[in-house]
Amino acid sequence: MNEYRYSDIKVGMEESYQTEITEQMLEHFREITGDINPLHCDREFAKGKGYENRVVYGMLTASFLSTLAGVYLPGKNSLIYETSTKFAKPVFPGDGLTVWGIVEEKNDLFHMFTMKVAIVNQKGEKVLRGKMKVGVLDGTE
Amino acid sequence: MNEYRYSDIKVGMEESYQTEITEQMLEHFREITGDINPLHCDREFAKGKGYENRVVYGMLTASFLSTLAGVYLPGKNSLIYETSTKFAKPVFPGDGLTVWGIVEEKNDLFHMFTMKVAIVNQKGEKVLRGKMKVGVLDGTE
Repeated sequence: MNEYRYSDIKVGMEESYQTEITEQMLEHFREITGDINPLHCDREFAKGKGYENRVVYGMLTASFLSTLAGVYLPGKNSLIYETSTKFAKPVFPGDGLTVWGIVEEKNDLFHMFTMKVAIVNQKGEKVLRGKMKVGVLDGTE
Repeated sequence: MNEYRYSDIKVGMEESYQTEITEQMLEHFREITGDINPLHCDREFAKGKGYENRVVYGMLTASFLSTLAGVYLPGKNSLIYETSTKFAKPVFPGDGLTVWGIVEEKNDLFHMFTMKVAIVNQKGEKVLRGKMKVGVLDGTE
């Protein structure tokens, strides 16, 4: 886990990591949220809507931004303040995702920075794009 | 599960539901995301940062918006296109949350609507506020 302090964060810094979507992730997400929508839970229903398989919950894909901030950038001293996400392509079980962010702007008054984020699948397609504002709780001036 | 069609959706329609944050939800979220940040996983670390208990992942709280759209408004025919969320207060295990949304605007060209959303804890404090754009996949004109 990274432990960047606010003073370590520079505009242009990037971090990324990879993950693979498993069926188990969808089950866990359904248990957390109670979202039993058939587009995400019923392969035949999803096929009837024109998809090759059940579609991964958009908010499950977005949840990887938690790790991007909390483990990578800034890591240990992270507290997410704000997120915005657009879902650009469907994600399916088995997809390999690269979760990426770059520091765009710092706010010294609140020890917070703005990160541009994207999640890209194994075909190089952007499935999510967005922004995050993240506070850095290291207590330094 | 509601099954509103696009033509059923009216500006001013509201839906809400309640959920309670369990320790199990945090474990499931950590298994999905790999976010092992100690603010969310280590009570003593969180206390050292001034919190009464480990803090619930912001993106876990945001994940309840999946259910708001996918089960309640519009329900079965839902596809989330865009979300924006601000985390206004910390959430803790054991908190009871009310997840609420109201239709603000319709877009007939894309069969999509904009919903204002909020999540409120058992003390009546707004812990999350945001917006969501949701498509309605019912195939009606």
